[in-house]
Amino acid sequence: MTDDATRTIAFVLYPGLTPLDMIGPLQVLASLATADPRYAVTVVAERVEPVISDLPVRLTPEKAFDQVPDPYIVVVPGGTLGTVRAMVDPVLRAYLVAAAPTAHKVASVCSGALILTAAGLLDGRNATTHWAFAEQLNRLGAQYQRQRWVEDGKFLCSAGVSAGIDMALHLAAELTSEQLARSAQLMIECAARLVAGPSSGCCSITSAPPSTPVPWRVSELSPFCPMAIPRRLIPATASRVLPRHPVGARNLAHHC
Amino acid sequence: MTDDATRTIAFVLYPGLTPLDMIGPLQVLASLATADPRYAVTVVAERVEPVISDLPVRLTPEKAFDQVPDPYIVVVPGGTLGTVRAMVDPVLRAYLVAAAPTAHKVASVCSGALILTAAGLLDGRNATTHWAFAEQLNRLGAQYQRQRWVEDGKFLCSAGVSAGIDMALHLAAELTSEQLARSAQLMIECAARLVAGPSSGCCSITSAPPSTPVPWRVSELSPFCPMAIPRRLIPATASRVLPRHPVGARNLAHHC
Repeated sequence: MTDDATRTIAFVLYPGLTPLDMIGPLQVLASLATADPRYAVTVVAERVEPVISDLPVRLTPEKAFDQVPDPYIVVVPGGTLGTVRAMVDPVLRAYLVAAAPTAHKVASVCSGALILTAAGLLDGRNATTHWAFAEQLNRLGAQYQRQRWVEDGKFLCSAGVSAGIDMALHLAAELTSEQLARSAQLMIECAARLVAGPSSGCCSITSAPPSTPVPWRVSELSPFCPMAIPRRLIPATASRVLPRHPVGARNLAHHC
Repeated sequence: MTDDATRTIAFVLYPGLTPLDMIGPLQVLASLATADPRYAVTVVAERVEPVISDLPVRLTPEKAFDQVPDPYIVVVPGGTLGTVRAMVDPVLRAYLVAAAPTAHKVASVCSGALILTAAGLLDGRNATTHWAFAEQLNRLGAQYQRQRWVEDGKFLCSAGVSAGIDMALHLAAELTSEQLARSAQLMIECAARLVAGPSSGCCSITSAPPSTPVPWRVSELSPFCPMAIPRRLIPATASRVLPRHPVGARNLAHHC
């Protein structure tokens, strides 16, 4: 990509994934893209059609793989049985193999790391995954690290499910600034906390902060004003339905 | 509902919502439903068709409102402009008004509380919402409380976005046991942390734990074995694609 091209952060969708693995970091990085127009987020899959998930909701991507051949960052979410199927999906693997060399970062959430191993991208690398899949990750050629997220070169893996949110906040800070990451954190009212899961094979829990957390503190909100509800809309709509509670000049977007 | 009927936890989907508001607590309560067969989770909307969200992904509900007329629990996610439209959607409001009297719990995440006010369900009640909408919630007749989640009778509201996950962990503990809630927390590697947002109209941050957190500690995982990948599937699929890394008798589901 050229320096002035939009930097696309592509989340890979496949049947049976765990939606929170994708939606958590996507919500964080969508905030980032709102605040910094150099970035755009999208969701890609083999085809633009609804796919099942491990929840009673289907998800439809924005674009097909061939519409986003050169993502700046690619993020692979995890799941359970759907992830195993994705590991042997030649189209999905081919997409990752083609995207990785030019991508700035190749990331995974939870068992999404197993898909990266299946694409041959984590051989010998430090990585992490959901604690339940640690042994599996090692068997597939990566070096499991018991951390909330792990970076090795351009590869960035997070631990299970909700850890993807923390990884995305870290990534947001790295891509833009810690200040902007803090603001994104504030927008989703998320207090990132770094807690490792139990070690593989037993149930002991260890609190082991692996990296610097994005702290929760005073933040600048103005970059996120595009996300706010336009001032003119609230009074009109709300007063139609709620005449007992008239809405004044200030509104939901009073921060902007 | 009768005592032996399935207790359905219905998440309300509408165009323009913030997906993390729904997916976060849904992922928690889907774990609960896996472990306790008295409960089932579903996603409902006016029609079973894809709806847009504030992310580049569309979501398709499992069922239409008229297929789930009597949910045990109903959860309303938030958003920005889509939420304002939902406040004046007569079909959505009628569903909530009809469901609330027989529901065990009526919950909201983030600005979903504004939709509950629009349905006339929070008049004079203690409630909470995303910090940016606090003033608006009061104007619409509820009593904003600066807490991570707030219960008033059968009404349970959470603060912004990620707070819905913490609310769901609290709800899981209330519905079943704290032990099971902890296990659900462990499955998504989430360390619930209770941090209030800034007060309305300024940007100061206060850490104000509002309620008992669900602690992160040793948990029993066996209730979640149905979520694990069947043992027989991993070796066959993985060895086909990854002959260099043969998978032994132990597999991803070795905890079960």
